[in-house]
Parts: sequence; structure tokens; C-alpha cells
Amino acid sequence: MSQTTHGLHVVAQTPFQTDGAVDRASIATLSAFYYRHGARGLTVLGVSGEAQTLTPDEAVAVASCFVAASEGRAIFAGVSSPNLAILAEIAGQVMAEGARGVMIAPAASARTDEALFSYFDAVFSRIGDVPTVLQDFPAASGVQMSVPAMAKLVALFPQIRVIKEEDLPSARKVAALRKALPDHVQILTGNNGLYLPQELARGADGPMAGFSYPEMLSGVDKLMREDGNVAGAHALFNRYLPLLKHEAQGALGIALRKESMRRRGALATATMRAAGGTLDDADIAELDSIVAHMDLPT
Amino acid sequence: MSQTTHGLHVVAQTPFQTDGAVDRASIATLSAFYYRHGARGLTVLGVSGEAQTLTPDEAVAVASCFVAASEGRAIFAGVSSPNLAILAEIAGQVMAEGARGVMIAPAASARTDEALFSYFDAVFSRIGDVPTVLQDFPAASGVQMSVPAMAKLVALFPQIRVIKEEDLPSARKVAALRKALPDHVQILTGNNGLYLPQELARGADGPMAGFSYPEMLSGVDKLMREDGNVAGAHALFNRYLPLLKHEAQGALGIALRKESMRRRGALATATMRAAGGTLDDADIAELDSIVAHMDLPT
Amino acid sequence: MSQTTHGLHVVAQTPFQTDGAVDRASIATLSAFYYRHGARGLTVLGVSGEAQTLTPDEAVAVASCFVAASEGRAIFAGVSSPNLAILAEIAGQVMAEGARGVMIAPAASARTDEALFSYFDAVFSRIGDVPTVLQDFPAASGVQMSVPAMAKLVALFPQIRVIKEEDLPSARKVAALRKALPDHVQILTGNNGLYLPQELARGADGPMAGFSYPEMLSGVDKLMREDGNVAGAHALFNRYLPLLKHEAQGALGIALRKESMRRRGALATATMRAAGGTLDDADIAELDSIVAHMDLPT
Amino acid sequence: MSQTTHGLHVVAQTPFQTDGAVDRASIATLSAFYYRHGARGLTVLGVSGEAQTLTPDEAVAVASCFVAASEGRAIFAGVSSPNLAILAEIAGQVMAEGARGVMIAPAASARTDEALFSYFDAVFSRIGDVPTVLQDFPAASGVQMSVPAMAKLVALFPQIRVIKEEDLPSARKVAALRKALPDHVQILTGNNGLYLPQELARGADGPMAGFSYPEMLSGVDKLMREDGNVAGAHALFNRYLPLLKHEAQGALGIALRKESMRRRGALATATMRAAGGTLDDADIAELDSIVAHMDLPT
Repeated sequence: MSQTTHGLHVVAQTPFQTDGAVDRASIATLSAFYYRHGARGLTVLGVSGEAQTLTPDEAVAVASCFVAASEGRAIFAGVSSPNLAILAEIAGQVMAEGARGVMIAPAASARTDEALFSYFDAVFSRIGDVPTVLQDFPAASGVQMSVPAMAKLVALFPQIRVIKEEDLPSARKVAALRKALPDHVQILTGNNGLYLPQELARGADGPMAGFSYPEMLSGVDKLMREDGNVAGAHALFNRYLPLLKHEAQGALGIALRKESMRRRGALATATMRAAGGTLDDADIAELDSIVAHMDLPT
Repeated sequence: MSQTTHGLHVVAQTPFQTDGAVDRASIATLSAFYYRHGARGLTVLGVSGEAQTLTPDEAVAVASCFVAASEGRAIFAGVSSPNLAILAEIAGQVMAEGARGVMIAPAASARTDEALFSYFDAVFSRIGDVPTVLQDFPAASGVQMSVPAMAKLVALFPQIRVIKEEDLPSARKVAALRKALPDHVQILTGNNGLYLPQELARGADGPMAGFSYPEMLSGVDKLMREDGNVAGAHALFNRYLPLLKHEAQGALGIALRKESMRRRGALATATMRAAGGTLDDADIAELDSIVAHMDLPT
Repeated sequence: MSQTTHGLHVVAQTPFQTDGAVDRASIATLSAFYYRHGARGLTVLGVSGEAQTLTPDEAVAVASCFVAASEGRAIFAGVSSPNLAILAEIAGQVMAEGARGVMIAPAASARTDEALFSYFDAVFSRIGDVPTVLQDFPAASGVQMSVPAMAKLVALFPQIRVIKEEDLPSARKVAALRKALPDHVQILTGNNGLYLPQELARGADGPMAGFSYPEMLSGVDKLMREDGNVAGAHALFNRYLPLLKHEAQGALGIALRKESMRRRGALATATMRAAGGTLDDADIAELDSIVAHMDLPT
Repeated sequence: MSQTTHGLHVVAQTPFQTDGAVDRASIATLSAFYYRHGARGLTVLGVSGEAQTLTPDEAVAVASCFVAASEGRAIFAGVSSPNLAILAEIAGQVMAEGARGVMIAPAASARTDEALFSYFDAVFSRIGDVPTVLQDFPAASGVQMSVPAMAKLVALFPQIRVIKEEDLPSARKVAALRKALPDHVQILTGNNGLYLPQELARGADGPMAGFSYPEMLSGVDKLMREDGNVAGAHALFNRYLPLLKHEAQGALGIALRKESMRRRGALATATMRAAGGTLDDADIAELDSIVAHMDLPT
């Protein structure tokens, strides 16, 4: 992570076989799909990668396969856990497998600034000098971090090189963090990319999000940050927004994303392990209707 | 509420003067704006009406003004409170002022089906035979209600005539509720209208939501439910989606909605009482940019 | 509050008639009971005073009656509310009725140090220079406050003259607060007095708690803080502990306390408004058994 | 579990060396201490066994050592986890090591009766026919289960043979469960034994709790359930109550319990892994003072 981390980092799905086993073979195909559509790196083992349904051994194997298919690109592995021993063990193993770093959200018990600092002190005293993406996602972690607290975390723990920012309203927080944090700390944004044009306009360094059309995420990022083409970025974003929003529905959204990616050849099956991930006929008809009424490029 | 409750019911803003006082005079203008754009009724004193910043006397006065401007249309008043004595007092007063009914979400303490039934038993033994909108909004109430539990609530308490459904994923839940509930119970949907086409396709009776362009909400409702014009509904919805999504950002979203409505002449000021409701230059520029890059009808 | 606030401040019950109406007439009797057993002041309208079942008008009337019976002693009135407008209105009214100050716990939305400071800034800009007891009770408020954050609150808002400390483990926190806070800020402790000897040994200025035998609370306080009789304090405390612990059971505990106080002549009825407050035969037999097997003074 | 599960089942500590490594060698000594003081079985890998600080491999090794030292007594292993794959893996491994069964609390996501049934359906479809202790401990799990919901769980899943009941007020709930559940389902009670005499009087089959003087727990259980000596049970319980209550303080309480057990020769060190488990001089002095002022048998 001597180089900067900017541009699209896709939050990757975990492919499963129809019987629920991890489909390691598909990870190369899936990775190629992400990179073909503009990903500069991946974040694996996130919530939308169904990490919470994998054993530690499975998790490490998944990370290992993504590293093998990365051709040197950055693979960050989500290792958040209420159990620090498990967190540290998986962190050590994925780094040994070649991950570029880990992603960590604070444990729910970190309910004050003091407790937050103590928590990461415990984390880093266990995992050592591992490049870390700090995930700021209160809706999932239960922990609200203020901008001053995050600035202090970054100052205390130089391992934190990237923020994955998804505290709502996120564009405002990106702007405040950009002011408060040193330049070498990158700010990537999540929330399924729902606020991407606004976040980039306020200083984000790219999306760290998932979508079945990742070329939109990388396209908007390029138009905004490299070409300065705001109108083009909005036009591209708005065209995909109906589906982007539809995929932002928790476990159902992940299921829809997997189905959409299956249709595009990125996944062999849309199978999910996570509860809520089975699509019925009405769900499929709904997806079809949304896609039919969007103005997608042909 | 002998007639059915369907079609657009706008979740109304509460207008304030620049000094923060309730702007009763503007309620007539505001109501006219809502009705001109297709509202068949209003829900006042909801979260986005900043009810949590009003004293009981102010709340009743606001409801009274909306009733006065309703020309007989249905005004539902949100009365949810962790304090049952306050809930009952306000419910009695707004009904005396001519409200059509009240809207209630369960108190956070109702953490089992049993506790849920007990809670509403306590509520209705206090407020009596008042037509009630049951709000199913776990993100705000903290209470998750299953479909069977809601069906039992409706069977136990005939006062419940309408469901305001906003538990995600909402379209799926609308479909399940439509199957489980008797026909005379209407299902209106919230979540700022973000999933409106899908919810209507699954059996919802209309939106109960707020947006600075309510004509989109009423238009989509009409196209879907009356005209059977799905393509037209999606086209209309998608055109406004960038702003609709931008207004769905908690207190910031309400502030943006008020500012947008101020520009359209519906409100004299965009003043908010709720925390987080002050727009800075960057927020305004962001709103301008979103509107500029949308494809709004002229 | 020019004088210091130390010694027993009883968290007072609210007396109800058997029909549930507030029993204002009994407040004088009840107050005399508290003062006869060593109370130097009272905290009214707390959770165990069933404040959450009172309308604002009832709450103010209750506070007024307690002031009338106080003979100049300090009456603090709990005014915490998620609704700042209601909080401010009741605070103004109880102060006008002669309360010595108010007690406030932060709203659940105050989830970072920053948000905590903002919350109390909003509170004090509304209520002005009102002497305030800051209640630190995360189990009820949902807000965890660190010692540095509390020290900053006290520095920012000189209205905060007393801490009601009941974050567990409380004795440790009392010690840390005593070090961090200026001497003029008193620390009283709650949690139904369950940790009183330890809290006093660590620097607390007295109990702010309820118990049907308040003479134990005042007795332990005097033995520890005035007489330096640690052995005597423990002996007294331990003798009552079985009942003290039995009364520390939420709404059931309040019901038991009211029943026990009814037996002692402090209350005309044990009626509660709060849910869970009806004692059945088994509850009564259990209370009888505990009292029968304690070694109470005769 | 063909035999009934009644009497004292101690919630066991996990011994650590001073460097934090699991102290497997001490498990035999520790087990002997528990059995010498009346334990008929143990529950290992609970919260107070610091399970949340162990890796899966460590957890299984700890369970294995306790089984080896059990001489045929029942060892239940806590396997609750938000990650079902980890739960199932550990459950399989501890059963293979000879555990009598597992203990499971519902995941925090099980927020309705429906979701609760689905959760345990997923659990038992993964772990199969494993004897299970259902832990009802909302303060830790975040899940409130009603008595009817628990009765339905027991009917749906015959694997549930024991309830560990610690929802407050627990004695009331024990009584309601005893009425609602078939006789072959045992009810043991937790909450550090704080309400043990009342719970036994209401039908509990014994304590499943931890205390540094387990002879009190087994003694009260015998006096109440076998000898019918209520006065003796209360006298014994009350004598130890000051320390019992002092050990019921979360991580601090566990640290105090370990220190007290170290003094009694049950543990080689009082080392904890869990945060908050380091005792300072004031904590030690406080423990000394409590013990000095109790009326312990010599």
C-alpha cells in the first residue's frame, strides 16, 4: 500500500455452488469480470460477500483465491468480528495468503471515543503493522464515529490507510473527513454507490462498493475525478440508478445482484448462503421489469 | 374512514418561521400545494413533520390547521410516543379537532409478539375507537413485526384500518401482507416512495410518503393502479429518482425537501427545528447539481 | 444549589389512587416518610417514579406537590425526553413551581462525544441556567459516556452540579469521576443502592436511590462518610441486602417497593401505572418470604 | 441426556496462564473444585468463560479438557455465534470430543417469533440431533423470547432439553415456563444465581451459574429442592449474597470471581483475556473488604 488506493474497489461477492459449497473455481471468472469493468482492486469477505456465513477456514480460502486471480491488484479482506481472537487469526492468515490489507469496523461494544481507541489499540496490538481499511458503517456495526474521533484513530494508528465511508449522510461526512484527515489517507465510499456523484464531488477517492454493472461505478469515478465531466457522470449514474437502488436492499439486494451478475456471465449460479437470499418468481419478475424499463446501453 | 383510504397521502412537512415558531399561516398554502399535486389526504406529525420537536399543544395546533385546510379530506395525525399518557392525550385532542384518525408505531419495548399485543391493547383501551394507521417502520421504531403478528393485530383491533408499510424489503412485505390481511385494510407505503412502483405492483393501495414533487407520487400511483401503464409509471418514477433518493437522507433529506418546496412556492421558509436541518453552501450546490442533471418536465 | 448536595436523596415514588389517578394528597405523607428516614432531598419524576406514564401537566403537578411538602429541601425533577420541546417546557414549569433543579439523561441519539456535547448545548440553550443533575445510566438511556466526556460536559455547562452515577461497574467509575471532576460537582449514586458501600468508599457523596427502607440508605451513608464506621456500614447494608436486591427488578421491583412502603404506612395504595406493576399471590408470597428470612431490626 | 438435568451446573471459568495462553493443565484442578462443591455438570464456553476471546480451535480444546476431567458428568458447551457456519463447526467438534450437548442463544437478528423459529430451524438443520440448552438471556443476546414462543420452540425442536433462564424478572418467568413447558424440559437458572431461592420456589430445577463459592449454590439447591428447608436456604443464600452480588458485575465480576477462586486454590492465576478484567489495588481492597464483612463459615 505504498501506492495510493483510489478508483473503484469492488466489494466482491462470494460464489457458491448450488449445494452451498464455496465455488472456488468461479473466483477467477468473477475477478476477471470485476477487473474488465474497471476495478483496481477488490474488498472480499464483506457483508455483501456473505462473510458471516463462512467458517474461518473458508474465509481464508476465499481470500486466497481472490489473491491468486488478482495479478497484483490490491485485495482487502474484511475481518471484523466481535471475537478479537478470530479477527486476529484470520487477519494473520489472509495477509500470509497475500492480501494487501484488511478491513475492520469497530465492535459494537465501542460505544464512546475512549472505548473506540481502546478497541483499536487491542486490535493493532494483536495484528501488528497490517494496512487497514477502517469501515465507518454505523448501520451495520452499531458504532457511530465522529470526525474528530476518526482523525484521532488515524493519528494513533498509522496502519489505517483507507476509510470506507458509509455513514449517512455520507457526502457531508466525506467533506468533513477530507478536511480533518491527512492527505495520504484515502477515502473510498460504500452504501452500494448510492451517493457516488456527491461523494466524489466532496473529495472521495473512489467507490468501494458492489453493483452488477461495475462499469457504471468505474465510469462515474473516471468522469468525475479524471475528466471533470460532471454532466456525463450524472447522466451515467442516473441511467443505472433504478437498478442500483434495487440492489441496495440488504440480503434481497445481494441476491438480485448475484442473479444479475449470473445473467452477465460473471457467476455460475446466484446461490446465496445468507438468509433472505432466495428469489421467488415475483422477485425475478420485479428485477426483469426494472431492467426492462431502464435506459441501459446496448 | 368508512370510505377506503387509497391513493397518495402525503406525509406533510411542518412549516416554521425563521425564528423557529410554528408557521400556522403557511399551512393553508402548503396544503393547497399537496392537494394540487394529487394528494387525497395527509399524514401530519410524522417524523418528517418534525413531530419530535413540537410540544403537545403545538402538535395539536398543527393538526388543527391542517384539518381546517383539508376541505374534508382525511388528515391522519402521528401520535406515537414512548409515553402512553401523552399519546392518549394528543390522540383525543387531534380527533376532537377533526382528524380522520391517528398513526401509531409500537413502542420500542414491544419486543415480542406477546408484548406487541399487550402494547396495542393498552393503547386502544386508552384511546378507544379511533381509526388508526399502524406504522410498520422498524428502522425508526426499533420494533420488527412479522406478517402473522400484524394479521393478528388487525384481527384483535378493528381500529386498525390502514398499514403504513416501510419495513425493508418493502415490496415483498406488501405482497405477504396483502395475502394475510382482510381486503378492507388498506396498505399504503412509505420509505420516501423509493420502492413505489414495486410496492404498487405487489398490491399496495398507494403511497403515504413525502417528496417535493408530489405529482410524481400521485402520477406513478395513477399510472400503475388506474391506467395499468407500467412503462409510463417507471419512466415517470425514474425521471425523478435522483432527487427522490437525495431527499431520503434523514434530517438532511427533510431539509432538502423543504428547500425544494420553498423554491416551488409551497413553503415560505425552509427552516427546520430538527437537528441536522441546516443547509450550507455545499448542500445547496449539491441540490442544484442534482436538479440540473435530472430530466424534469418543464 | 449554593449549598452542596450530599447525603441521601431519595428517588421518589409517584402515588396513585386505585383507579390510576395521581394521588396528590398522599404526597405529603410520602414526603414525611422519606424525610423521617434521613432524606435530605428528593428526585421526583424518575423512571421509578413512573414519569413515563404521566402527561406533562400531571408531571408538573406531582413536582409541585413534592415542593410544597419539602420544607425547603431540594427537589430535583427528572425531565429527560426524546422531545426537546417537551423537556424544555416541563423544565421551565417545574422550576417555576420551586424545584431546586432538573435531572437529565442524554437522548439516545447522542452516540458520540461530539453528539453528546451538541445535545446538551441544545438542551441548555433551551432551558438556560437551571441547576442540573446529569444522569449517567446507560442501561436506560442507551448512551455510554466516558469519564473524559463527562468532565468536558461539566466544564462546558456549569449548570451541571451533580452527577447521578449508575453506569456499571459504578464504584470504579465513581473513583475515576472523582479524580476527573472539580470538587464542587457532587457525585450521587443510583442503581437502587446496590453498590452503595463501595461507591461511598470510592468517593461518592451519597445515594440518590429508592428503597422501601430509606433509613438503611441514610444509615450506611452516615456510617461511611461521617462516622468512618466501615464495619457498621457493611453490617447494616448486608442486613437489608436481600430486599434491596429484590426491589432492583425493574417494574416488578417498583411494585414490590410500593407494596413494602404501603405496609409501612408511607403510601395509601401500591397502585402502579407502569406495565408489569401488578403483584399476584406468588409475588406477594415471595416478598413475605424474603422479609421473613431477613434479619431486620425490630 | 436420557437422565434429567437438574441440580447445580456451574458456568465454568476458562483458566489462562499469565501470558494469556489457555491453561489446559489447570482445567483438571478447576473441575475438581467445581465437583467437590456440588456441581453435577458444567457449562463451558459461556460469556463468563470468556468464550468470545477464544479461537474456534482453542474453544474446542477447552471443551475437550473439561470433558476429560468430567468423569462422565455432563459438559454443555456454549456455541452461540452470529456466524452460523462457525456455530455449526464448533458444535460438531465439541460433540465429537464428548460434550453432552450445546448451549445456544438466538442471534440478535431473530427479532420476531417468526424469525426466532426460522433461526432455530436453520441451526438444527445444520447441527442435527444435538441435545441443546436454550439460553434465554436478553441482556446479552438482544433477543426477547415470550413464554408462548419458547413453548413453540420446545415443541418444534425436541433437541431443546434444558432452558437456561435468565430473563428478568426471572422467578416470574420460571413459573410461567414451568406451566407452559412439558415436564421433561428442565429449567435451570442463571443471572449469577442472584435470584436462586425465588427461582427454585417457582419450579426451577437448579442453578446454571457461576460463583467462587459454588457450595452455596449447590447447598441452597439441596436445601430448597430436596430438604424443603426454606429457612435454611435463605440463611445460606443471604450469608453469601454480598459477594454473590459483587461478582455479578460483568467483566469486573468475572475478574473478582477468578481472584477469589485463585485464593481458594481452584485456579493458578486470575488472568483474564476479556477487556475490563484487570484488577487494580482499589478493586482488590474492595474485594477484601466485602469478604471481611461477610459472615462466612470458617
